[in-house]
Amino acid sequence: MTVEQIEALLAEVAGGRITPQGALEKLRHLPFEDLQFARIDHHRALRQGHPEVVFCEGKTPEQILAICERLEAASGTFLGTRATEPVATGLAARFPRLVWNRLARTVHLPPPDKSKPIPRTGIILVISAGTSDLPVAEEAAVVAEVFGHPVERLVDVGVAGLHRLLVATEQMQRARAVIVVAGMEGALPSVVGGMVSVPVIAVPTSVGYGASFGGLAALLGMLNSCAPGVTVVNIDNGFGAAAAASRICRS
Amino acid sequence: MTVEQIEALLAEVAGGRITPQGALEKLRHLPFEDLQFARIDHHRALRQGHPEVVFCEGKTPEQILAICERLEAASGTFLGTRATEPVATGLAARFPRLVWNRLARTVHLPPPDKSKPIPRTGIILVISAGTSDLPVAEEAAVVAEVFGHPVERLVDVGVAGLHRLLVATEQMQRARAVIVVAGMEGALPSVVGGMVSVPVIAVPTSVGYGASFGGLAALLGMLNSCAPGVTVVNIDNGFGAAAAASRICRS
Amino acid sequence: MTVEQIEALLAEVAGGRITPQGALEKLRHLPFEDLQFARIDHHRALRQGHPEVVFCEGKTPEQILAICERLEAASGTFLGTRATEPVATGLAARFPRLVWNRLARTVHLPPPDKSKPIPRTGIILVISAGTSDLPVAEEAAVVAEVFGHPVERLVDVGVAGLHRLLVATEQMQRARAVIVVAGMEGALPSVVGGMVSVPVIAVPTSVGYGASFGGLAALLGMLNSCAPGVTVVNIDNGFGAAAAASRICRS
Amino acid sequence: MTVEQIEALLAEVAGGRITPQGALEKLRHLPFEDLQFARIDHHRALRQGHPEVVFCEGKTPEQILAICERLEAASGTFLGTRATEPVATGLAARFPRLVWNRLARTVHLPPPDKSKPIPRTGIILVISAGTSDLPVAEEAAVVAEVFGHPVERLVDVGVAGLHRLLVATEQMQRARAVIVVAGMEGALPSVVGGMVSVPVIAVPTSVGYGASFGGLAALLGMLNSCAPGVTVVNIDNGFGAAAAASRICRS
Amino acid sequence: MTVEQIEALLAEVAGGRITPQGALEKLRHLPFEDLQFARIDHHRALRQGHPEVVFCEGKTPEQILAICERLEAASGTFLGTRATEPVATGLAARFPRLVWNRLARTVHLPPPDKSKPIPRTGIILVISAGTSDLPVAEEAAVVAEVFGHPVERLVDVGVAGLHRLLVATEQMQRARAVIVVAGMEGALPSVVGGMVSVPVIAVPTSVGYGASFGGLAALLGMLNSCAPGVTVVNIDNGFGAAAAASRICRS
Amino acid sequence: MTVEQIEALLAEVAGGRITPQGALEKLRHLPFEDLQFARIDHHRALRQGHPEVVFCEGKTPEQILAICERLEAASGTFLGTRATEPVATGLAARFPRLVWNRLARTVHLPPPDKSKPIPRTGIILVISAGTSDLPVAEEAAVVAEVFGHPVERLVDVGVAGLHRLLVATEQMQRARAVIVVAGMEGALPSVVGGMVSVPVIAVPTSVGYGASFGGLAALLGMLNSCAPGVTVVNIDNGFGAAAAASRICRS
Amino acid sequence: MTVEQIEALLAEVAGGRITPQGALEKLRHLPFEDLQFARIDHHRALRQGHPEVVFCEGKTPEQILAICERLEAASGTFLGTRATEPVATGLAARFPRLVWNRLARTVHLPPPDKSKPIPRTGIILVISAGTSDLPVAEEAAVVAEVFGHPVERLVDVGVAGLHRLLVATEQMQRARAVIVVAGMEGALPSVVGGMVSVPVIAVPTSVGYGASFGGLAALLGMLNSCAPGVTVVNIDNGFGAAAAASRICRS
Amino acid sequence: MTVEQIEALLAEVAGGRITPQGALEKLRHLPFEDLQFARIDHHRALRQGHPEVVFCEGKTPEQILAICERLEAASGTFLGTRATEPVATGLAARFPRLVWNRLARTVHLPPPDKSKPIPRTGIILVISAGTSDLPVAEEAAVVAEVFGHPVERLVDVGVAGLHRLLVATEQMQRARAVIVVAGMEGALPSVVGGMVSVPVIAVPTSVGYGASFGGLAALLGMLNSCAPGVTVVNIDNGFGAAAAASRICRS
Repeated sequence: MTVEQIEALLAEVAGGRITPQGALEKLRHLPFEDLQFARIDHHRALRQGHPEVVFCEGKTPEQILAICERLEAASGTFLGTRATEPVATGLAARFPRLVWNRLARTVHLPPPDKSKPIPRTGIILVISAGTSDLPVAEEAAVVAEVFGHPVERLVDVGVAGLHRLLVATEQMQRARAVIVVAGMEGALPSVVGGMVSVPVIAVPTSVGYGASFGGLAALLGMLNSCAPGVTVVNIDNGFGAAAAASRICRS
Repeated sequence: MTVEQIEALLAEVAGGRITPQGALEKLRHLPFEDLQFARIDHHRALRQGHPEVVFCEGKTPEQILAICERLEAASGTFLGTRATEPVATGLAARFPRLVWNRLARTVHLPPPDKSKPIPRTGIILVISAGTSDLPVAEEAAVVAEVFGHPVERLVDVGVAGLHRLLVATEQMQRARAVIVVAGMEGALPSVVGGMVSVPVIAVPTSVGYGASFGGLAALLGMLNSCAPGVTVVNIDNGFGAAAAASRICRS
Repeated sequence: MTVEQIEALLAEVAGGRITPQGALEKLRHLPFEDLQFARIDHHRALRQGHPEVVFCEGKTPEQILAICERLEAASGTFLGTRATEPVATGLAARFPRLVWNRLARTVHLPPPDKSKPIPRTGIILVISAGTSDLPVAEEAAVVAEVFGHPVERLVDVGVAGLHRLLVATEQMQRARAVIVVAGMEGALPSVVGGMVSVPVIAVPTSVGYGASFGGLAALLGMLNSCAPGVTVVNIDNGFGAAAAASRICRS
Repeated sequence: MTVEQIEALLAEVAGGRITPQGALEKLRHLPFEDLQFARIDHHRALRQGHPEVVFCEGKTPEQILAICERLEAASGTFLGTRATEPVATGLAARFPRLVWNRLARTVHLPPPDKSKPIPRTGIILVISAGTSDLPVAEEAAVVAEVFGHPVERLVDVGVAGLHRLLVATEQMQRARAVIVVAGMEGALPSVVGGMVSVPVIAVPTSVGYGASFGGLAALLGMLNSCAPGVTVVNIDNGFGAAAAASRICRS
Repeated sequence: MTVEQIEALLAEVAGGRITPQGALEKLRHLPFEDLQFARIDHHRALRQGHPEVVFCEGKTPEQILAICERLEAASGTFLGTRATEPVATGLAARFPRLVWNRLARTVHLPPPDKSKPIPRTGIILVISAGTSDLPVAEEAAVVAEVFGHPVERLVDVGVAGLHRLLVATEQMQRARAVIVVAGMEGALPSVVGGMVSVPVIAVPTSVGYGASFGGLAALLGMLNSCAPGVTVVNIDNGFGAAAAASRICRS
Repeated sequence: MTVEQIEALLAEVAGGRITPQGALEKLRHLPFEDLQFARIDHHRALRQGHPEVVFCEGKTPEQILAICERLEAASGTFLGTRATEPVATGLAARFPRLVWNRLARTVHLPPPDKSKPIPRTGIILVISAGTSDLPVAEEAAVVAEVFGHPVERLVDVGVAGLHRLLVATEQMQRARAVIVVAGMEGALPSVVGGMVSVPVIAVPTSVGYGASFGGLAALLGMLNSCAPGVTVVNIDNGFGAAAAASRICRS
Repeated sequence: MTVEQIEALLAEVAGGRITPQGALEKLRHLPFEDLQFARIDHHRALRQGHPEVVFCEGKTPEQILAICERLEAASGTFLGTRATEPVATGLAARFPRLVWNRLARTVHLPPPDKSKPIPRTGIILVISAGTSDLPVAEEAAVVAEVFGHPVERLVDVGVAGLHRLLVATEQMQRARAVIVVAGMEGALPSVVGGMVSVPVIAVPTSVGYGASFGGLAALLGMLNSCAPGVTVVNIDNGFGAAAAASRICRS
Repeated sequence: MTVEQIEALLAEVAGGRITPQGALEKLRHLPFEDLQFARIDHHRALRQGHPEVVFCEGKTPEQILAICERLEAASGTFLGTRATEPVATGLAARFPRLVWNRLARTVHLPPPDKSKPIPRTGIILVISAGTSDLPVAEEAAVVAEVFGHPVERLVDVGVAGLHRLLVATEQMQRARAVIVVAGMEGALPSVVGGMVSVPVIAVPTSVGYGASFGGLAALLGMLNSCAPGVTVVNIDNGFGAAAAASRICRS
């Protein structure tokens, strides 16, 4: 039911063409949610200021191209994650302005007018434990940047060599939110969480020997962190961590 | 190495009783961390404004009493979680001002001077799906309050009856951080995360029939949330969720 | 917002005391869902003809008594599952008409006017594999009866003695829905599903030696049934199976 | 033992060529089940009105072709699921009337005389949460159609955007059975089950990030649904859901 | 349908009171399985020569007493496993001849006429790894003895002290079947299986530190035995191992 | 220490060239196990009458060829399991008499003199539930035949169509040992175990939809069989089942 | 076969009462392992210098008393782990010299002559992360002391407060072996392993919130340690860690 | 803060250009860890005498080449594990002195001056259960050799043929540390641990049939070893075992 339809119904009541009881019956059975639908959608556009994000894994290059064309037509911009080389190549042929980050596996069409995104103030700091965790960390960093946040990176600071981390205490405490990406035993978020008081979002990765069980070891480690207030997202989900950090910086 | 020791060493350099090179050698091999320890501790006191928290589960009433007496002597206040009736009774006999929340299983000795906690501004909203999730939700709420945050509660809004949740959209969006506590399939955080743009911290509970496997079903459900940016803490960990929300409100 | 409130608003429009536009604004910001809540509730009463069901596990006798008193006041009837002896004794002292099924662990206060429930026509057949599965099977049977369905029972027909099952083929095929309760390897639903074409709802139970892992073995067995179209509910969830069968018989 | 053999034996009794006791001995040791076999098979043909279904995964194109030729010779029709492109191409070369649904991965040879299937009345509604769940949803829809049921589809109505689902309440309630296909946290069946009273069959899919563990997260979520009466089939088993819905519509 | 009923039907055919075709129709729709039931039951009595076995776990003393009284009335004997002290005490009061094995947790009423069990020839050897595995091993031994088999025992021969096992090679090879009971890593069956060529039945027990996960470690170890031809039963299932060994000795 | 070395030592004692005490010292520190090694090896040859078996999976064609050449040189025969086409082709080029079973994935070089294997008497019956289980069932059958046992096969008798199984009761009971191969829910061994008293060895296969978890569902189902005395081997381990059946037939 | 028996046999050879070939035959079939048994046992006494250790869990006080009396008679000393208060009380009544460590749950009867244990030189350092890990850490410490090793303790140095650990670097590096006991995410061994080059033995404990799954999270974390060369023992197995450290110090 | 910076600061104190209190403030806020970083690194070089180790899995040949060139420039040597043929070929083209062990999957550039590594004295013995475990065992052996330890190998001594192991008792006891590599049920470390008193490091491998679950069975088996003091590393982690053994030999 659109706003127009409700307005028309109320006009009928005002004009005596329908009794209040009859209008009540109509309201009782109408899909008010359509009204809410439009409103919510508008809210999303207003408050987030960033394009829809396409999860490319499990879609064909043709499907992805079709979705991105629709998004570009609507908003002039789009962002895709988990993009393979064929996907990126296909999109670049169609959108010459496309930015492909091979390490992060992201494809991004910046909005034509660069000044559009509302500039954010809080820094999102992305920390990664090992070089194998870089793709996930970079996905988080790129998504956060596309969402309009200033991003800093701190790489290769695993817990087996703590000194590299200890020197960065001030940098960590200065951030509005810290994303910590780690595989294997996933201990880094506990250490970071014990060093700083800012929000810490932990991202387990599927990096590791046999008994990492595809990231399960890191995931459980992070959920059981002895540093209070560390929160966790899904395995290898750099995008989700960036979205969570963005919620914090926008709140 | 204490601050006094370093000061003494520097005085020796200033007095020419030791060369700079000799002092460097001493510094190189000394446990600078003691210095850092004191500093970090002080930082904690300054920035958090709340007492240490005692996890009572698995400790005897005697041990808990001893720890709380030490905390009270140092700071005039303490907070304990997972406190059973015998623990609460024992502490109340010793500390007449003790506040025991039976549902949340918390014991709290408020600081003598109530004005001390720095008043926070952002609201932490604690949402729970079912009545069986209330102990965990209440633990989160009490901890957040003790940490100095204004708290609102929204109870019994499980996804099988969405209308109860939909009417609270504005209340949710107004919060600085939302804690969502749910057992069984743990779907509530996804729904909430899709309705608002504020940070959403999901707490799985161990409530459910056989195949909930002690909260594993809810935990996995929340980690796989289709609403981007939902983060997760450990099963039944209301305290951890409050600590995470507090990090957000303080950042 | 109650129905009365909406009716009053529409009366104001009809009386010209408020313009249609003004009423629209009010409606736009009101919790329409309260309306929906009432409507849905009413629908539930109309279409289901049975009282709310209280899951007693994890609640104190006092809490259960309070909930049941509220339900009795509203509808004159209630049903509780997983009721222990203390719960049943406490309720019986308050409600002399209470029916307690010790095996099924159910407590039921029948509506004062027995003729109220709309009589159903399709039979729900509850089959159990072993004597240890009886509590779950009986929970399913009692709930189905309270929901107004005629129920038949077939007990102790495990797959290790198929002859007992084979003689009941006609009885099974005659049912509108068949609930099959089994622990251990959970093979009975596959056999039943291969014999009849009616809907088969499988309920795994936590009955079994070590490697049943609390019903996991039966659950997985039923999910992997080679008989097409067998569906599964949670471990030991006789209530859920009855609710599913009731949906089928009412559809 | 065939019907003919039993008839012959009874004729011998009638003719006095064998005593009743002698015939009893023979019956006692004969495979009566062959009789039952034929009867059951005939029943299947009568009551189901659809061809045998071939699960193509793990079979070579040659094996599948051989099976389908035998089925076509016997009944003039067949249905295959999980058919890859080579399988479909091979079958199409042999059966020019073959219908291949690339998305659903089904191959179907319609019966020569289209009017044969007994027309069903109840609608089967197939709901899917995301675009990645479409192959499983489409498998369910195609199988249900081949089994003779009218099918409706509702796509891309994940719980993170509830408004899309809320507008379809009436469509859902009108169906005879609803199949809900969802990956990730698998929360959609709970929401649907709370909105309508018709039978809800949940199908978890293997879609999701790391901790979906191949669909385990969605499976557990659905088994723990807080909406009473939701039943579950195996991961990615669109065929099984269609078979279950068909049992309901035929009961 | 009983044997008498079939005999009567055949007599009617012989007497010309019913045609063969009419009898065929009746047979086609009758529960022939009742006939088979009786036959199978009789077979069981003939070939096994042992009473029904009652699994006492999860049954009340009253239920067990009722079952045992029915068994005693039918066969003069019974055997129960997993019997607690209250169960044994209650049965002993009713059956003075009852034999209670506290370690094996078995209760046995020997048949009045001791000569009845058909004497078996092959020896069943029960080997246990540690003293904590004795209850399961003794359950296997007692059940095998009640089933009429000569039993030998070899205890405390864990793989960490192989010499104790090596001296028993000849004893092991002489047995008709060997049951190996072990917890922790469950390695003993592999060692035994490599030493002898007789059938080896492995029984994992739930004995062990944390990561035994209730016997899962031993179970997986035994299933992965590098000694070809070792077979496995459920965790702590001494009864099942004895039944398997009895099948071997009777085959 | 070889037999020759011990014989020489004893000759020295007999000849007085070494005292009994001196010989004792030597024996005390010598590897007696070499003696045992030879003896055991000889026993294996005597009692089993079959060649060593090569598990080809994870070995290169070159490695397999080298091993088989050594085995052929020693015994004139060999058997390999899990042989891919390249492995079989390579071996066939070297050993023209090689027998390759593509379905069972076995390669076998029969001994030059066919009469060598001691003829066995008891039949090993291999039952498989579905066509996808055939490779594992055939591996079991081929291995049993190479080990010298007469083998019968019963295929496609899944529990969803019991009549096919019921007619084979006599054939099953006549066997010395029954191997039952099944995937999905793995219910077939329970049904077979309830029908016959002979030894039943269950082999779970990795065949099935998502929640079969690579055969885990079938494995757990078989371990929890309600038919007493069913034993289980590893997932897809047809070879192990044949070895177990061979132990039974030789005992 | 005892040493005396072999000596007698050799004497018969020396005396010509048996030929070397005859003696060889006897040796070939005799249980040489008894000889080895005695030797191994003697070795154990010589090299370990400590009493047998009794795992008290799952044994009755009577059984434990009987075992300890036998050990005391043989060696004058014993050590028991996982001893409850009733066990300790019962043993203390019988052995007044008994030392009971309530925290470590150990009971120890020191040898009468204190000087007996060979004094060890290398220090075993036991580090624990939290106060809840103390029982396991103390079990390790007590066992190591009873085995004759000097032990140092470092408590409450969890990774969320690294400064406490960093000051102890020199103490850690000075140890011959370090045992690190931690629950929750089990990250401490990684940090310690990155700081020192001495052997690090990690002990996961079952301490933690829901998703620690009884210590599984800590166990997986430690197995996936990014610090090379960290080894792991079973959950809560302080005894095993001490035994491992003792092997290192004795090697 | 570099050493130079601290030296300059101390010089300022000595020269009176800054007071001791002012220097203390500066030190309090400076990253002392940079100093510690250098020191730790130097320690590592001194005490370990071996190059950094590159884990090649998951890195491109280009990345590995870049890392190795940097390592070679710094130290004249490097070691890589999990190196595929393309990686090895690429490195060999750049470093003609490269040693590639195809079985162990290692690449090693020996230091130019062979005499550099400090010669170790204790032997590391690497035992493997089956031929499929050889790659992991060889990785352990090669790494230990590169780390400067004398290594012995004992292959194909699985527990199903114990005689092969028993003859090697003396060789095992003579080692400073024993690495035991085994897949399937992982029983070998228990047997070895029961035979010798030296440190035993167990390495589970992912070798095995279905229910080995990628090495989980062997891992759990080793963690539950009944031989006290056996420690465990991650699945297939030969490198970790060598690092652990090296810690022992250097302690």
